[in-house]
Amino acid sequence: MKKNFCFSLILLIITFVCSGLVLADTDPLPSWNDTSTKKYIVQFVQTVTNPGSDDYVEPEDRIATFDNDGNLWIEQPIYTQLAFAIDRIKAMSPDHPEWKDTEPYKSVLKGDYSKLDKKGLLEIISVTHSGMTTEDFELIASSWFKTSKHPKFKRSYSELIYQPMVELLEYLRANGFKTYIVSGGGIDFMRPVTEKLYGIPPEQVVGTSVVSKYELRDGKPVLVKMPEIFFIDDKEGKPIGIHQFIGKRPIFASGNSDGDYEMLLWTTSGPGKTFGLLLHHDDAKREYAYDRKSHIGKLDKALDAASKNKWVVVSMKNDWKTVFPFEN
Amino acid sequence: MKKNFCFSLILLIITFVCSGLVLADTDPLPSWNDTSTKKYIVQFVQTVTNPGSDDYVEPEDRIATFDNDGNLWIEQPIYTQLAFAIDRIKAMSPDHPEWKDTEPYKSVLKGDYSKLDKKGLLEIISVTHSGMTTEDFELIASSWFKTSKHPKFKRSYSELIYQPMVELLEYLRANGFKTYIVSGGGIDFMRPVTEKLYGIPPEQVVGTSVVSKYELRDGKPVLVKMPEIFFIDDKEGKPIGIHQFIGKRPIFASGNSDGDYEMLLWTTSGPGKTFGLLLHHDDAKREYAYDRKSHIGKLDKALDAASKNKWVVVSMKNDWKTVFPFEN
Repeated sequence: MKKNFCFSLILLIITFVCSGLVLADTDPLPSWNDTSTKKYIVQFVQTVTNPGSDDYVEPEDRIATFDNDGNLWIEQPIYTQLAFAIDRIKAMSPDHPEWKDTEPYKSVLKGDYSKLDKKGLLEIISVTHSGMTTEDFELIASSWFKTSKHPKFKRSYSELIYQPMVELLEYLRANGFKTYIVSGGGIDFMRPVTEKLYGIPPEQVVGTSVVSKYELRDGKPVLVKMPEIFFIDDKEGKPIGIHQFIGKRPIFASGNSDGDYEMLLWTTSGPGKTFGLLLHHDDAKREYAYDRKSHIGKLDKALDAASKNKWVVVSMKNDWKTVFPFEN
Repeated sequence: MKKNFCFSLILLIITFVCSGLVLADTDPLPSWNDTSTKKYIVQFVQTVTNPGSDDYVEPEDRIATFDNDGNLWIEQPIYTQLAFAIDRIKAMSPDHPEWKDTEPYKSVLKGDYSKLDKKGLLEIISVTHSGMTTEDFELIASSWFKTSKHPKFKRSYSELIYQPMVELLEYLRANGFKTYIVSGGGIDFMRPVTEKLYGIPPEQVVGTSVVSKYELRDGKPVLVKMPEIFFIDDKEGKPIGIHQFIGKRPIFASGNSDGDYEMLLWTTSGPGKTFGLLLHHDDAKREYAYDRKSHIGKLDKALDAASKNKWVVVSMKNDWKTVFPFEN
């Protein structure tokens, strides 16, 4: 016991020395400009991790939740998951000759998405996201990310993630936070890539999901994705999903649209020190500029609520040195 | 960089030396008798954590799932959660004078549970588990565990957990496993106590749940528990819940009843080396003996399937040196 104690002490000392050197050497948020936004983030993290502070938070309660579309990866000109669904329709069309004469498939196959109303959208999502086992879908989604191409940037969607947010996730984790995605996007669509893109493992991804059905095939169990919604993780669904999946109230939440309003309010209404971050897409040159009038990622009610709730609005244009990892 | 590397190396060496000493000093499963069962468990853990083995599993894929009722804590003569519901009916009765003349309340208040059919049970569970905020329910559940008394053991239900299973959970975690509860019991009922009882944090508890409703009260958001089932985490629901909440297939699963059959099959049908554990309650002296004919924790189909699927059947009587923590 004494021996172990001695070793533990040495271990502890070395850990402190090492971490001191690392912190002194490097800026944890190099893609962020030195604006007040960066200062607020660092101040918050330093406060809640300082055992001497009245606002100290135990590591197990350092929960941070991040929206995904438009907050960690690009969402314009169409949601990444819709781009996937459209590509899947094209890939599946040889087995569906009837689609050539049936809307919405007919137009989608011609590259015309103007006729995609809500009903058509749901049909396309449903057809491409159900009828296969969860394991088959995982393979389909993973391989799509390798071949996908964004129309503006001509790069894979997996490259169109925000470098400053990746650094923020890493910075929070380095300070004992557990980082989660809480997204309106499909949970099975995100999970195959979140570890690689953001360092977030599947079990820390909360999202929208369809009903799964347990079946035996050749005596072996499979889970089949059904064309029926199980849970919508958007708006009020976000605090509900957080409660269901995490069971703790976050102390840090980050979003970029009205779909994140309830998650931010839930987070910053909690006891103790909290942080609400609202990413504002105001950089038409490096990415896109959109907010109140946008069909995708509409930011209106949440933007109005920011100052009252002391949410920090991040200007992509002014607060970010770089946007995408490939700029470095 | 060079400095950090050097420190890291020292750190690594000391870690190895320390862990070597600890392993040599102590038996990680002291409440287990030295039977073949214990040997199988240790062999499995040593194999999947040995980087030189063909069956090596990366730490991030070391997922272990445990049923709760009758597997981690006692489930006889009635489920712990039903004991809670009955106590709540008694505590709530002053505000419900009409219950004196209404079944099933009338009988329950008199201590007669013989008239509790399925409909009556559901009503009692519903009345005691909905209508309050998630935070209020957490307080109610936590405080019940402090005052509850088991009819046979005359101890709080929080003391009636299985010491060998607590050690198994710790042993798995010490070997890089992430341990989860996957239970038919209520997620909100278990979460307030699982960290203290088992070292399992709320975010690693999967269970049955009711619908939650997001509401604003005095401008602050709350989640209200509704009298409507959201998800039943039992039988086929267990692999489905595992997929929903964890998004990975476990390599180790432990249960004690037919409700765990699908979880065990799902786990041991996976690729690579897996472990299915089936706890058999055969110790009438120290706990209870029950299996095929029991109303609670019926173990029939799963027991028949054990040898075909190479699940390890644990005999409480022969494999466990002690049952409860207070025996030590």
